[in-house]
Amino acid sequence: MLVTDLIRRKRDGAELERREIEFLIEGYTRDSIPDYQVSAWLMAVLLRGMTRAELAALTESMLNSGEVLSFPELPAAKVDKHSTGGVGDKTSLVLAPIVAAAGLYVPMISGRGLGHTGGTLDKLESIPGFNVNLSVSDFRRVLAQCGAGLIGQTKEIAPADKKIYALRDVTGTVESPYLICASIMSKKLAEGIDALVLDVKTGSGAFMKAEKDAVFLAELMVETGQRLGKRITALITDMDQPLGNAVGNALEALECIDILNGQGPEDLRELCLVLSAWMFLQGKRVQSIDEGRELAGQMISSGKAREKFREMIRLQGGNPAVMENPGILPQARFKADVKSTVSGFVAGFMTEQIGIAGVLLGGGRAKKEDTVDPAVGIIVHKKMGDRVSAGEALCTIHYNAAERFEQAAPLILKSYQIGPMPPAEKRPLVRRIIGDK
Amino acid sequence: MLVTDLIRRKRDGAELERREIEFLIEGYTRDSIPDYQVSAWLMAVLLRGMTRAELAALTESMLNSGEVLSFPELPAAKVDKHSTGGVGDKTSLVLAPIVAAAGLYVPMISGRGLGHTGGTLDKLESIPGFNVNLSVSDFRRVLAQCGAGLIGQTKEIAPADKKIYALRDVTGTVESPYLICASIMSKKLAEGIDALVLDVKTGSGAFMKAEKDAVFLAELMVETGQRLGKRITALITDMDQPLGNAVGNALEALECIDILNGQGPEDLRELCLVLSAWMFLQGKRVQSIDEGRELAGQMISSGKAREKFREMIRLQGGNPAVMENPGILPQARFKADVKSTVSGFVAGFMTEQIGIAGVLLGGGRAKKEDTVDPAVGIIVHKKMGDRVSAGEALCTIHYNAAERFEQAAPLILKSYQIGPMPPAEKRPLVRRIIGDK
Repeated sequence: MLVTDLIRRKRDGAELERREIEFLIEGYTRDSIPDYQVSAWLMAVLLRGMTRAELAALTESMLNSGEVLSFPELPAAKVDKHSTGGVGDKTSLVLAPIVAAAGLYVPMISGRGLGHTGGTLDKLESIPGFNVNLSVSDFRRVLAQCGAGLIGQTKEIAPADKKIYALRDVTGTVESPYLICASIMSKKLAEGIDALVLDVKTGSGAFMKAEKDAVFLAELMVETGQRLGKRITALITDMDQPLGNAVGNALEALECIDILNGQGPEDLRELCLVLSAWMFLQGKRVQSIDEGRELAGQMISSGKAREKFREMIRLQGGNPAVMENPGILPQARFKADVKSTVSGFVAGFMTEQIGIAGVLLGGGRAKKEDTVDPAVGIIVHKKMGDRVSAGEALCTIHYNAAERFEQAAPLILKSYQIGPMPPAEKRPLVRRIIGDK
Repeated sequence: MLVTDLIRRKRDGAELERREIEFLIEGYTRDSIPDYQVSAWLMAVLLRGMTRAELAALTESMLNSGEVLSFPELPAAKVDKHSTGGVGDKTSLVLAPIVAAAGLYVPMISGRGLGHTGGTLDKLESIPGFNVNLSVSDFRRVLAQCGAGLIGQTKEIAPADKKIYALRDVTGTVESPYLICASIMSKKLAEGIDALVLDVKTGSGAFMKAEKDAVFLAELMVETGQRLGKRITALITDMDQPLGNAVGNALEALECIDILNGQGPEDLRELCLVLSAWMFLQGKRVQSIDEGRELAGQMISSGKAREKFREMIRLQGGNPAVMENPGILPQARFKADVKSTVSGFVAGFMTEQIGIAGVLLGGGRAKKEDTVDPAVGIIVHKKMGDRVSAGEALCTIHYNAAERFEQAAPLILKSYQIGPMPPAEKRPLVRRIIGDK
């Protein structure tokens, strides 16, 4: 098999066979096929697309490039949720304890924040002592013991994805929905799960700003997961404003604790209930979404989810006292409000700019190598449709360095669109549902 | 300037600026930009195309990546011809002496055969002692002394092209007309010429089988040459059958000597006269094509072109006795005819297959590293429209190894299309003329 032939055929829009895609991915993982051939092929894929069969073959080849976990000893379904990322998107910290509290298993391998979006690992690490770098055997032990484990990608899981992602990053081939799908799904399916719920974000704070792009990616991921034998549902959800009120690692961890305590913002609670319900349904814990939603609510109101989170924190080395005493979370030295200069209604957000303001404060990463300041962030007081008076606080910025505040504050102010009227229609939090129902 | 941004913009169909293309080509030549980024960019160029301004900038960047010759001391125009390659395409060996005999200068940097097409350097090297590997200073001396010099690409000329071509070869990015144009023109314009005549082949023995593809490439090359300040004309010429009768290095050299002696096949002589006429016109040696054609004919009939070729051979270390005694050219040990199995008329050729038969005999290269046998080849007796009787010889194969003959002979037989009638219309040798007239 000649690599050049495979590149040329993809370039000319032909469909590659499964064994050809396996040959490419195996060769690249083993270093027998060089970067420069793979980057040309990736560009051809980006510009020509793939068939669903090619995409399934690519995903499976990447999945099989490393260790594929499995937990036959666990007595209930293994389910996970994956989000394509947004601003203030913190549901994993709520979902894992809710779903585990109801008896399912959540073996969750998560990522770090990059660009304007946050990452689950960074949020967890804001809890003093919390260790996301467990070995596979420790991960397995934590999962069996409390029903959920939250770790970062290990070098054993989908090494082909790690190598391909690094190459895409420097060759202008990140944006292909096919390559995004294969990257996400190869990692998620290596977790040994039975079912997966996808939270595909769309709107001004999402990677997919246009709903049709989000739907296209969701359809690719659902079909790929189904071809690989998993139960899978994708929810297209709103990212036209930050989710919840907190943006920033410790602030978001605290907001999740609020939700588990039966408090916290309405939109975040609602999305957590809906996503939990789908995880319960796909994990065959319940028969309907209504029943799943009910069960998720009970896990919160009974305190079981809160106790489960406490157990998870303890088992992963964190200080569980954070549940009663959030003051032990890192705190920024300074707080200051961003005030509206006009009166009116919040008519829109340039949400990505709020994420970027968080990065400027030091709470995120512009480059992979950057370290994050867990304490800094933004508390959003005014959201879509809210009435605002001139001089009233739109947000409160938590910061540790005045010059960073000076950069972030004007960006946040500009990201608010304040008009004479609230938006004509309230767009639903969940816009579409794709896949197994 | 970020390489990734340049790749992404080309990927998305945007036009890059001249300085951006220069940055890419300079960086790649100096090894500060890696192969894997350039290959992704090349694939994006192949699939997205380039504007004419981008193409001129690319060509000029590649041209300026190395030494650009110039001959201000020479008292007449410097002109060259470049062919896109075909089977039996040997005009350079005739044109250089004709044009130099009439007082112009021909600083010709040529290539080797690859795939089904032959190369000028291989044909020249079949002449005992002929050295195509002159230093630039020897090339300059030969050119000044006799008006023509024929050498191979040196490492000083257009090193960016050498590096990019090697990368294209292994990344499925050879076939882009934009990249083909930049590769050809960057090398040719580094020769220090004032004018260039392009022989763009089309038909079953050409790289561009379809005339429209040949015309498109010709238009790109003409516009690029004009933008870089050269007089330039492209002739779209027939490659639906071998040019002349000889295919194979020494056999082709001999056929060129025949032409210079006022003999040889009609189609080859005709094309040499037409191409010479255009070189004279673009070199301002004549006022019209008719006058140029007349002058070319005189150079042959007077024996001046023949004497010029003798001088060129002598100055480049070859044995000039070949002009009187072609028997000193390498001779194959065996000859055998390929005979027609049917009677009728030659209605068509799969000309590329005849070129491949030449490679199978050992006369060409399947890979760049292959060495060639200068003696072997094919003499074509029956060409388009000729009447053939069953049992009559179509070709004579000159060979050195019986097993190679056994591979080549059936391929040649199959490449002849013999029908009950000659082709309805005789297609002209020169199909279109593009560019400066």
